[in-house]
Amino acid sequence: MARKLTGGEDFAGLKRVEKTLPGRAYHDPDIYRRELQPIWYGQWLYLCRSDMLADAGSYCTESIGDQPVLLVRDEAGAVRAFHNTCRHRGSLLCREKAGRLGGKRIVCPYHQWAYDLRGNLVRTSSLSEAPDFDRADYALYDIAVREWRGCVFVCLADDPPAELSAFRGGGDYTENWPLAELAVGHTWRKTVACNWKVFWENFNECLHCPNVHPELSLLVPIYRRRIILPQDDPDWQRHEGSADPKHRGGLRPGAETWSSDGKAHGPRFESLSEAERAAGQRYYVNTPSMYIAAHVDYMRIVRILPRGPQETEIQAEWLFPPAALDDPAFDLDNLVAFGQLVLEQDGAASEMNQQGLRSRRHEAGVLMPEEHYVAAFHRWYRTAMGEG
Amino acid sequence: MARKLTGGEDFAGLKRVEKTLPGRAYHDPDIYRRELQPIWYGQWLYLCRSDMLADAGSYCTESIGDQPVLLVRDEAGAVRAFHNTCRHRGSLLCREKAGRLGGKRIVCPYHQWAYDLRGNLVRTSSLSEAPDFDRADYALYDIAVREWRGCVFVCLADDPPAELSAFRGGGDYTENWPLAELAVGHTWRKTVACNWKVFWENFNECLHCPNVHPELSLLVPIYRRRIILPQDDPDWQRHEGSADPKHRGGLRPGAETWSSDGKAHGPRFESLSEAERAAGQRYYVNTPSMYIAAHVDYMRIVRILPRGPQETEIQAEWLFPPAALDDPAFDLDNLVAFGQLVLEQDGAASEMNQQGLRSRRHEAGVLMPEEHYVAAFHRWYRTAMGEG
Amino acid sequence: MARKLTGGEDFAGLKRVEKTLPGRAYHDPDIYRRELQPIWYGQWLYLCRSDMLADAGSYCTESIGDQPVLLVRDEAGAVRAFHNTCRHRGSLLCREKAGRLGGKRIVCPYHQWAYDLRGNLVRTSSLSEAPDFDRADYALYDIAVREWRGCVFVCLADDPPAELSAFRGGGDYTENWPLAELAVGHTWRKTVACNWKVFWENFNECLHCPNVHPELSLLVPIYRRRIILPQDDPDWQRHEGSADPKHRGGLRPGAETWSSDGKAHGPRFESLSEAERAAGQRYYVNTPSMYIAAHVDYMRIVRILPRGPQETEIQAEWLFPPAALDDPAFDLDNLVAFGQLVLEQDGAASEMNQQGLRSRRHEAGVLMPEEHYVAAFHRWYRTAMGEG
Repeated sequence: MARKLTGGEDFAGLKRVEKTLPGRAYHDPDIYRRELQPIWYGQWLYLCRSDMLADAGSYCTESIGDQPVLLVRDEAGAVRAFHNTCRHRGSLLCREKAGRLGGKRIVCPYHQWAYDLRGNLVRTSSLSEAPDFDRADYALYDIAVREWRGCVFVCLADDPPAELSAFRGGGDYTENWPLAELAVGHTWRKTVACNWKVFWENFNECLHCPNVHPELSLLVPIYRRRIILPQDDPDWQRHEGSADPKHRGGLRPGAETWSSDGKAHGPRFESLSEAERAAGQRYYVNTPSMYIAAHVDYMRIVRILPRGPQETEIQAEWLFPPAALDDPAFDLDNLVAFGQLVLEQDGAASEMNQQGLRSRRHEAGVLMPEEHYVAAFHRWYRTAMGEG
Repeated sequence: MARKLTGGEDFAGLKRVEKTLPGRAYHDPDIYRRELQPIWYGQWLYLCRSDMLADAGSYCTESIGDQPVLLVRDEAGAVRAFHNTCRHRGSLLCREKAGRLGGKRIVCPYHQWAYDLRGNLVRTSSLSEAPDFDRADYALYDIAVREWRGCVFVCLADDPPAELSAFRGGGDYTENWPLAELAVGHTWRKTVACNWKVFWENFNECLHCPNVHPELSLLVPIYRRRIILPQDDPDWQRHEGSADPKHRGGLRPGAETWSSDGKAHGPRFESLSEAERAAGQRYYVNTPSMYIAAHVDYMRIVRILPRGPQETEIQAEWLFPPAALDDPAFDLDNLVAFGQLVLEQDGAASEMNQQGLRSRRHEAGVLMPEEHYVAAFHRWYRTAMGEG
Repeated sequence: MARKLTGGEDFAGLKRVEKTLPGRAYHDPDIYRRELQPIWYGQWLYLCRSDMLADAGSYCTESIGDQPVLLVRDEAGAVRAFHNTCRHRGSLLCREKAGRLGGKRIVCPYHQWAYDLRGNLVRTSSLSEAPDFDRADYALYDIAVREWRGCVFVCLADDPPAELSAFRGGGDYTENWPLAELAVGHTWRKTVACNWKVFWENFNECLHCPNVHPELSLLVPIYRRRIILPQDDPDWQRHEGSADPKHRGGLRPGAETWSSDGKAHGPRFESLSEAERAAGQRYYVNTPSMYIAAHVDYMRIVRILPRGPQETEIQAEWLFPPAALDDPAFDLDNLVAFGQLVLEQDGAASEMNQQGLRSRRHEAGVLMPEEHYVAAFHRWYRTAMGEG
């Protein structure tokens, strides 16, 4: 039975009842539209790995909400981002998910206006141009780009925030990993019938773990206790120094990584600390568009993009040392299958949550002590929405 | 040729021109939204038979508009209804159409909050609870329930109407039937592309019968004359006492019930009056969510629930004496097929009506003398909408 | 490289930069709704060929936006148009695309109200009619009709414009063709995921031709230069009198018509001038609902109707001398396949344009000198919308 707190406990959990966001924040189309500007068009968003853009003229396309975006590597080696829209009459410029531009030009497939890789209009297709037509007025609509450890972030705002990570107070616990050198070995993508915030809330707590993720809760024993950190337990001091993973966190004895058999399946990263190796998992969170899970032998980037008030696209990329991917004996499936199973379970749980949220009586939910990261997510959200 | 009324006739029909509801009442999403509160969230609605909830812990789920509802039989034997939404973070509680709860608890599949069958929160899943967290504040959102002759009605309003039947002036002509003792032998369900009021209007008149329901019009000869009651004919007095079913109503000579061959196919109800047996059909109407047809050997409950401005779910349940269903020789198909055919025809007619209603010139239609029940339905609707 | 204009050139092109319509004019549902009244419910629209309505009682149905329309030939031989909506309770009257009415009556399939072919209510289905019910009050909702060269136009407005063609300044360059005598040999229909204006803009320029229509640009060499008229080239005077089709326009040497092999495949129209025969193509444009292409052996009518903010139905009809269609050796496929290929290409280009138009940075595009017909289309649109 749950212990009644006095409020004087020294632990990570919430010590008083906090309300969730109002129920309609998760399905009202007007609220969704109001979120676009400050959040999805205002913050840095992860789109893809830098090596998707191998060299000058490589491109890929993506959508943020319904905004078509084009990423290109230019001749100086920099990644550029543009609205995927021709300045002439607004046609889509690139139609494929990824490819390579011939002749180092972005050529509109409709009327063949040509832009260089920095977005400058270098050629129209007309026999003549009007006296007041100046090509310099028709460069592609620029989007701010930043690269970080092999990850490409964009920001649709005119004046992007100084910091990449919008989640106040988050730290990067994956610094010892050679993220920039890793290569994507597998990509999984799914559109989930939930609001994007529902998926993030689910990520930010482990109260759901034992029942939603039975396999994961065997691998990470502390999750069986429905907590993420040892300090989420008000009695954590009584177990301080315990070697039992259900108290100290980390993987079960004998397990090295998130995989179907718990074994690592390639070279272990040598740059990790002893504690990191022992824990078997570390995270980096960059709300609203990505989080990274780091293991001894691979990393996993999960990307979250909204598609509508009740629709969210989840993408996961599994990253490995290139040498592992080159090894024909490398058991990639064993590593991939486990994280994919967990994500499928999270997607199903999020859809179930979404359905119940439509009740008109559900004005707001309530957060329990273990849900302090959900509370932090709500604080971030309210601040981003100017309600802070 | 139609007879011109003087207005002095003594009959059931309308004696002056009445307009229908305005055309946009049948397709405008704003009007649909305005209807939800007073009608679909304000009145008693039939959801299911009591025996769907066999004993303590049996449950079933349904949606009213987009509101998820949960019905459960509690340990005292009473039926309870709740919003199908967990008080924690709003997850759906029960995902199946029907089932049985283990351990007499409603356990949320997301974070395992547990409620007793009266909706009281008896357990959270947390290690601790905040000082100001009181389980008594988190009982399931209650919905009013009433049982009537083995039928479960719910009302989403805080202050439900005193009377079950919202349709002013309606009487129950099925009182002699043992409705409470019957069991569902067959269920049919279809989503029809029409506004819910279109389906009800269609139910409330027989002007459409000869052409839309040729088989039914052979079985019930008065329907061939496009009327429901003998008194719908302005000349009804001239045929008073006629044994001809096209004047007195009821089934054709030799027919006993609504079935493909006109024969009854199980034990006849012994509680019926001679007149009821002779008529072969009686009705009970409970607008907006159900009507019941009663025959000598079975009953049929039709349930009507809205799914959107131009989408309505129709469900029919065929009810029989349990002994009939236990008899391997019982010809259920013969009974079911006939009513199902009539409902399919009504659905197709309603969809056809819906399409024409989109014309911007159609400000309103007109009711003919035979459509007095449609006029009564419109009066009920206007009163319910506060336009009375 | 494009020549820089001084502005003093004497040619057909635009001599200064003109903006396109704002980006949201192509996807905003509110703007679409605002267009319906002045344009789609306010102007003459081509619906079908007169011979679709062979004789008294022949009918066909169509939708304008979501308005159901019924066309019938009456007993005096005139074409009549009505809202396809019964005056009783608003049912659709005719459900098929085309057919023949039995007994020269429009009989509602729901309750059998019967109208004569001029729309007068001649019979209800009721046993009686109320004293204040006057059939004369319930004629079908009339729609204005005009026939022109075998084409049926309708206008939903109460007070239709005097002129059939809404496109200011347009001329009919197909006057020498026997359009009224031709018969439809093939019909093609496709719903394209673009705003209706996108499709019209695409029609009104040839900057897209070489890349979007490689086959057509071989057949019509001037299109390879991305222009429609010789006078679209600022240097056109230097090529005046040239016999080269890339300067004078018209089909490539040896080609007679739009067909897969460039050959004509039936009797050539004898009424054409030498110049018309030599050019191989002439056009008539009737914005917003149709354009006609005329060739030496056949004509093609393209009809454009909106289905939503981002959805447009395109229909093409190929018309031939009846004798050609009666000839078993007539190679209709060869003629039809070519124009159908070009329309499929236009549809794909329009969908590509639509996707790029969703970018929030795309406030407006820009028109190049060759796009003077697009500018004229925009002037027509702004005038029609009262923004002129």
